[in-house]
Formats: sequence, C-alpha cells, structure tokens
Amino acid sequence: VSAALCHCGKEGFYLRQHSGDVLCEKCFVKSVERTVFKTIKREKLFIPNDRIMVALSGGKDSIVLIHILSKIERSYGTELIAVTIDEGLSGYRQEGLEISAKVAKDLKIEHRVITFKEIYGHSLEEICKIAEEKGIGLLGCTFCGILRRRLLNDYACRIKATKVATGHNLDDEAQTVLINVLRGDFSRLARLGAKPVATRTGFIPRVKPLRYVPEREIAAYAYLKGFPLYERECPYVRASLRDEVRDILNCIEAQHPGTKFSVVRGTDRISDLLKDKVIKSEVRRCSRCGSPTGREVCRMCEVLSMLGIDGTFINHLTE
Amino acid sequence: VSAALCHCGKEGFYLRQHSGDVLCEKCFVKSVERTVFKTIKREKLFIPNDRIMVALSGGKDSIVLIHILSKIERSYGTELIAVTIDEGLSGYRQEGLEISAKVAKDLKIEHRVITFKEIYGHSLEEICKIAEEKGIGLLGCTFCGILRRRLLNDYACRIKATKVATGHNLDDEAQTVLINVLRGDFSRLARLGAKPVATRTGFIPRVKPLRYVPEREIAAYAYLKGFPLYERECPYVRASLRDEVRDILNCIEAQHPGTKFSVVRGTDRISDLLKDKVIKSEVRRCSRCGSPTGREVCRMCEVLSMLGIDGTFINHLTE
Repeated sequence: VSAALCHCGKEGFYLRQHSGDVLCEKCFVKSVERTVFKTIKREKLFIPNDRIMVALSGGKDSIVLIHILSKIERSYGTELIAVTIDEGLSGYRQEGLEISAKVAKDLKIEHRVITFKEIYGHSLEEICKIAEEKGIGLLGCTFCGILRRRLLNDYACRIKATKVATGHNLDDEAQTVLINVLRGDFSRLARLGAKPVATRTGFIPRVKPLRYVPEREIAAYAYLKGFPLYERECPYVRASLRDEVRDILNCIEAQHPGTKFSVVRGTDRISDLLKDKVIKSEVRRCSRCGSPTGREVCRMCEVLSMLGIDGTFINHLTE
Repeated sequence: VSAALCHCGKEGFYLRQHSGDVLCEKCFVKSVERTVFKTIKREKLFIPNDRIMVALSGGKDSIVLIHILSKIERSYGTELIAVTIDEGLSGYRQEGLEISAKVAKDLKIEHRVITFKEIYGHSLEEICKIAEEKGIGLLGCTFCGILRRRLLNDYACRIKATKVATGHNLDDEAQTVLINVLRGDFSRLARLGAKPVATRTGFIPRVKPLRYVPEREIAAYAYLKGFPLYERECPYVRASLRDEVRDILNCIEAQHPGTKFSVVRGTDRISDLLKDKVIKSEVRRCSRCGSPTGREVCRMCEVLSMLGIDGTFINHLTE
C-alpha cells in the first residue's frame, strides 16, 4: 500500500479491504475511535453517572477498549474501574496481570484483581485437577467460562457497577453468530448486540463497544499506540468449533470483504425483529445460592457441586 | 460397516452418522421415504386435488422426488405433471431431457418440456452471447436463475398447477441458510421452509418435500433404486460462494454430525417466530408485463430489457 495515499494526502498505513479506503496512521486511529464512539452513541451503551466495570485481561482487545473508553470518560460523566480476573494458571496469567496493572496506572484508572482462589477456594489449575481425578469429562474452558462470567457479574454487583464492558470485537461477534447458526440456536441471536437485547433482570448489563471493530484493526491500533503485546495462549486451549469458524470466516472475508460486517449487522436487524418475540425468561433465583438464573440450580452451583466444592463462599460477593 | 447389522437383523448398508443408526438396504429406502412423507404431512405440503407440477431436471434429486411423490399420488388424491426446462445449452441438457422423459414414462406421469427458445426467443447460450457482446457483467447463472424461476411459475399458472414441487435437499437448504447469514440477509430466512412461510399472492406455492433428506442419502437412494445417474456439470458453472459454503458445511458435518439438520431446523424455528413480523410485500404488478412482483419492474423484464429482448412473448404464458 506504500504508493497509496490517505484522503488527507499523507502516506497510507492501512487498507480497509471492505471499503477500499486507504488511511494514514492518524486517520486510521481516528477512524477506529469514531467507530467505537458511534457504537456507544447509537446503541446508547452508557448514560451519565454510569459506573463502568471494564473486564481487563491484558490482551489487546481489552487494552484498546479501556484506552478508548478513558477518552470519553469525562465528557460522558461516567466512571471507569478496571477488573482483572486471575483464574490461576501458573506461567500464563502473570504477564497479563502486570500489563493490566501498568495500563490502568498509566490511565489513572482504579484497578482490582480478583482470583478464582479467593472466591472459589481453588485456582482453575486446581479445579481442572479435581475434574480429572473425578473423571468429569468437561474441558477446563467450560469451568472457566461459567465461573468467570459469574464472577464478573457478582463482582460488578459488589462494587456497584452499573455496566460491565468487555472487549469483544467484530470477529468474536461474527464467530458467535455462525456458531449459533451451525448449532441451530437462532433464538440466542436475539440476545446478541453491542447492548444485549433481552438483558435479564438481576444481571448487570454487559456492553461491547468494540463490536463493530475488526480484530485486525484492533491489532493495528494497538501496534500504532505502542501498547504492550501479550499474545500468550492459554495452556488449556484446545481445537474447538470456534477455531474452525474463525478460519472459515477469515477465508470468506478474504474472498468477500465485508462478510464479517454483514453477519453482525444482519444479526442486529434480526434481534430487533425478535426483540419482543423472545420470551423473557422468568426471574428465578437459584435454589442454592439465590442468584438470578433461568434454571432451578444455576450453572455455577451445578459446576461447583459436580466438583464437590462448597459454593457458599461466593455469596459474600453478592451481598 | 460390513460387520454392523441393521436393527432388523439384516446386513448394514448405510451408517447414518448423526444418529449412529445402521440400516440395511430395505430399511434405508423406507426411512428416506418416511422422512419425505412425514415432511409432507407435518408441513401440510399437499391437499387433495392438488395438481402438482414437479420440476424435473433429470438430476438425482428431482428423480428421487418424483419417484417418492408417485408413491403417494393416489392415496393423497393429487395429480402429478413433470416439467423439464430446456434452457438450451448444447451438449449439456440433452442427457437430462432423455432421462426425464424415460423416468416420467416409466412412472406413467405426463411430461412436458419447455424451452427458453420458445418462451424468450433465445436459448441461454444465445442470451449469454448477447450479454457478452453488450458488456453486461452478469454471470449466465444470474440470467438462468431469474428466467427459469419465472418460467416455472408462469408455466405452472398456465397448466393450472396448484403447487410446484422442487428437489431441494437438506444440503441445498443448509447452504442457502449459511449464504444468507454470511450476506447478513436474515429476513430471507423467514421465507425458507419446506412450505414457504410468506408465499406472496400471485405466485404458485413452491414446496420442497426433500428438505430434510441429506444429499448423501438421496444419492444412496438413487443408487439402490438403480436410477440413471446424470452428473454432468453445467458448462457455465463457476466457483461461487455456494461452492465454498458447500465445502465448509461438509467439513463441519464430518466433525460434528448433525450440523446440517441443526442449521435447517433452527431456521424453521426462526421463520415461525418471524412469520408475522415479515412485512408481506404489497401485491404489485410489474409495470411492463403485469406479473406479480415486489418491484416496479420485475426481475425478468429488467433482465430482458438489459439484453434488448422483447419481453411481450412471455405474456402468452400467464394468460
């Protein structure tokens, strides 16, 4: 792209395939930020006095997210708190924790770390070991996903956050749509969106300001801003349907630029259509821990009882 | 599968991956037919006195379709007419025409052939040549699709058919879903189904009795029945998104048997949900040919005028 120039006359840095636009470094950065600002405005992700808990893993998505959110913090009259979950995987999370702490400090944002160990009494490593010993045929990712999601929500309650912001990008979202389509689970599509359509009572609303930014642009933005790169893969990661779907979408996007956008925007339209069709699940309380859930026993209690872990500890968080 | 036995005790012929069932030849044939019968019954595809026009190309799908439909013709009190469209591609269609004629004769079903030449005044080959000369950058498949679909409907009107049955199978349908999702066109999903949800006024209802039969099972059924195989590819075929999607679905199906079913069944559920949401397009008449359409000028007239072909001829069909 070296020969191509940005519309402002400067040397091109980024070729946006689906639009054909060439952007210089400065215009590219502005353009990514504008996409995020427009998402926040259009979808009304935040209101004044929102106390936003940002899920900060130390990966490029969450770092870009908190940087861009910090730019609008004052003008929006919102407040940011960065929270990093340390699931306890030796040699993996440490770097992310250090990067997260540094990023938050540089941005003068309050940063907290919560560990699986202090909440569940066991690190993820220990949980995986228990599961193996008990012959429970579930992947570490299953435990991690359930326990992490719950922790984010409960911790947000505890610190009186009014929103939880996560760094899901366009690629993540398009993958999720395709996975649900392949599983035939279209009803779940209605719950997707930068701002979830059918937020269930009792849960802190989760927002995804990066939903319309392709992963490639987040990587380029992080590179330009000189953010620390932390690309270590989780040692428990295995080949999953999501990996297949990621490859598929990247292949199709290369042949038909704009596909990821189409998939996500198409979903937005359908969730609008389905908005009042999706039966809002009755507000129930888990019979064991009392948390809001759509089931008799919530997924966390189910997993903990499978593992033989006492789940009463977690209650301290929600009260 | 030689060692595995069918539940009836006979030697296994077919292993149905997604259910794990092993079926002998006889039980397999019965099972495919039962799937089709159940689809017809559940979706209420036919009513007594229906005059069903079967689109018979001579390929395995349409042959299997007409065979199975012929089995229920009397019990349902319906009437079958086979129609083959000869778009006029030398060296390609001839074999399909011969097979179609033989199949219809064997089944004692009335068979008619309509040609692009007699209706549009030009064969598809000639149309492609005109398009090339005029520098119209559309694929032959685009013309063929528009003109063929229109012809099927108009001819069905002319012979007073009450339904048009096509041989679309599970693979075709799952591909169509995925293509629409990748294009972000979810609203079109609402119109899919064995029996289209929002059949527009003025169009003869199209039904797809093979919608829940995988292509692989249709091939195996055709093989067992000794149907003539006709696998010649259209000379105009090009690599398309559908080819990519076919490969993708076959890969994922191999890894996760049952995916094609999930995709199609998931769509059924969503089209139910969207049924009354999809704004039924106003019944309009094409300002040129008077046919029912959602547009000012119908796609056929648009294509014909692009090509400089007089479209008045086709009116003879609709009256």
